[in-house]
Amino acid sequence: MTELTVAALQLGLPGPEADNIAHVSELVREAAAKGAKVILPPELFEGPYFCRVEDEGLFSNARPTSEHPSVVAMQKLAAELGVYIPTSFFECDGPHHYNSLAMIDDKGTIMGLYRKSHIPDGPGYEEKFYFRPGNTGFKTWQTPQATLGVGVCWDQWYPETARAMMLMGAEILFYPTAIGSEPHDPDLDTSRLWRRAMIGHAVSNVVPVVAANRIGTEDGQRFYGHSFICDERGDMLAEFGATETGVLTATLDLDQVKRHRAAFGFFRDRRPELYGRLVEDR
Amino acid sequence: MTELTVAALQLGLPGPEADNIAHVSELVREAAAKGAKVILPPELFEGPYFCRVEDEGLFSNARPTSEHPSVVAMQKLAAELGVYIPTSFFECDGPHHYNSLAMIDDKGTIMGLYRKSHIPDGPGYEEKFYFRPGNTGFKTWQTPQATLGVGVCWDQWYPETARAMMLMGAEILFYPTAIGSEPHDPDLDTSRLWRRAMIGHAVSNVVPVVAANRIGTEDGQRFYGHSFICDERGDMLAEFGATETGVLTATLDLDQVKRHRAAFGFFRDRRPELYGRLVEDR
Repeated sequence: MTELTVAALQLGLPGPEADNIAHVSELVREAAAKGAKVILPPELFEGPYFCRVEDEGLFSNARPTSEHPSVVAMQKLAAELGVYIPTSFFECDGPHHYNSLAMIDDKGTIMGLYRKSHIPDGPGYEEKFYFRPGNTGFKTWQTPQATLGVGVCWDQWYPETARAMMLMGAEILFYPTAIGSEPHDPDLDTSRLWRRAMIGHAVSNVVPVVAANRIGTEDGQRFYGHSFICDERGDMLAEFGATETGVLTATLDLDQVKRHRAAFGFFRDRRPELYGRLVEDR
Repeated sequence: MTELTVAALQLGLPGPEADNIAHVSELVREAAAKGAKVILPPELFEGPYFCRVEDEGLFSNARPTSEHPSVVAMQKLAAELGVYIPTSFFECDGPHHYNSLAMIDDKGTIMGLYRKSHIPDGPGYEEKFYFRPGNTGFKTWQTPQATLGVGVCWDQWYPETARAMMLMGAEILFYPTAIGSEPHDPDLDTSRLWRRAMIGHAVSNVVPVVAANRIGTEDGQRFYGHSFICDERGDMLAEFGATETGVLTATLDLDQVKRHRAAFGFFRDRRPELYGRLVEDR
C-alpha cells in the first residue's frame, strides 16, 4: 500500500512579504508535524493579491526564480523538514513576467518551473496585464511516493489541464489559488462553482485533488477560502469554509486510487482520434 | 431574450418494447404540454438494459435506423407535437452494431445520427460485447432556438466530449443514460459521481446540462434515476431522486447563458497549442 499524506494551507495574506512568508512557514511546519509530505500554500502568497488593479509599479515585485524570497524561504524549509512544497510566485525572466510555480523537493532543490498556462482577466483579476501566458506546457513531478500534477489557479477550471497532467502520469492534482469576490457583481459567489469544476476533474480522472486558497479582505476584495482535499470520487476528505486559518491534511492510499481508476475504464475507453477539435485554434 | 424549455424523462423501462415506447410517448406528451421543445428520454428505452449480460440472441433486437420502432414512434410523435426528440436506440448497419442516437426534429425528420463514442465494459455493463465504438465523431444539432449537443451515457464522463461539442457550437448538453448499481460492488453508489462529472462539464463550459436516466430494478440491477437539469453554474433547476417517474422541465435563458460564458473567459483563455497530449494515442 502506497500511502501519502498531503496538505493544503489556508490563511490571510495581507502582507508585508516577510510576514506572509513567516505565516506560511509556520503552517508548513504544522503540516509537516502532522505527517504531510507534500504541502500546498495558496497562489502568490508573497503579498496581497496585487492583480486586483493594473499598476506598473508592481512589476518590480517580480524576481528571477532563484532570488525570489518565497522560493528561497520554501527551499530552506523543505530541506529542513524533508517535504515537497509547490511554491507559487511572481517571476521575472528578462523582459518577461510569469505567474510561476517552483516545484521544490524534499532536499530543498528546485525540480523545475511551471508557468501558469491560462491567464484570467476581468474586474479584480487583471492578470493579463502582469503575466505572459506560460510557455512551459503542463508539468508533472516524479517523487518516490507519487507523480504529482500541479496547475495554478485559473488552470483549475480547465478540463484540458487536468487530463493532460493525468496522461503525463499524475496521481494527485494540486491547485494553489487566489480567488474571491467579483467586484463587478457583489451577488456572485463563485466558491461552489470553483469546487464543482475541480470535483469534476477528480471524478472524470479518478484522482484526488488538493486546492489551497487564501482568505481575508484586501482592499474590498474578499477571498473565500473553501480550500479542500477530495478523493478520487470527489468526496471531501478535509475542507475549510470561508474564514478558517490552518492546515488541511489527508492520507491517500494511492494503490487503491490506481485500482479504482483502472476499474472505471475512463482511460481505457478514450478516443483520441475523435478529439481533434480540442487542439484546433478556433 | 432567447428562451427555450427543455425536458428530461425518468421512468422504469422493464419491457416489453411496445409498453416501453407507449410509456415514453405518454411522458413526451406530458413534457410537450408543459411547453418543452426538446424532450430527452433515457438511453435505449426500447427495452430492459440488455447489456447486463452477454447474450448473442440479443443482437437480433438491433434495427436499421429507419426501421427501429423507437425511432419510428418518436418521429411520428415529434411531428405531431412539434418537438425535438433525441432518440437513443440499438442500431444495426450491415454487420455492425452501434449504440446510436437519432436526432429527430420538430417535423419528425431524422436530422442525423450520432453513434456513442465511448463504450463502457464491466460487470453489468457489457457494452463492448454489443457495440462497435461510434464512427460519427461528436455531433451538434442546429435548431432555430439553439444549437444542441447530445452525448450518450458513458460519453457523459468525458470532458473531451463536452468540450468538443461546445467548440462545435453547443449551447445545451443532453445525455440519455442507463446507469445504476454495480453488481460486483453492492456498496458502490455512483449516482453522486455521475452528477459531479456532468456538473463539472456545466461549470467548466458555462452550459446547461440535461440528463435522463431510467429507474427500477431489472434482474437485480437497480437503475438509480437522479435525472436532472442544471444551469450553466451547475445549480439544479429540476431534479428527481431514485424512484420518481415523470417529466423534468426547465426554461433556459440562452442569451444570459451566452453572456455568462463570455464573461467567464474560459474559451477566450484556452491554449490549444498546449493540449497536444490529449490527442496522442498513448
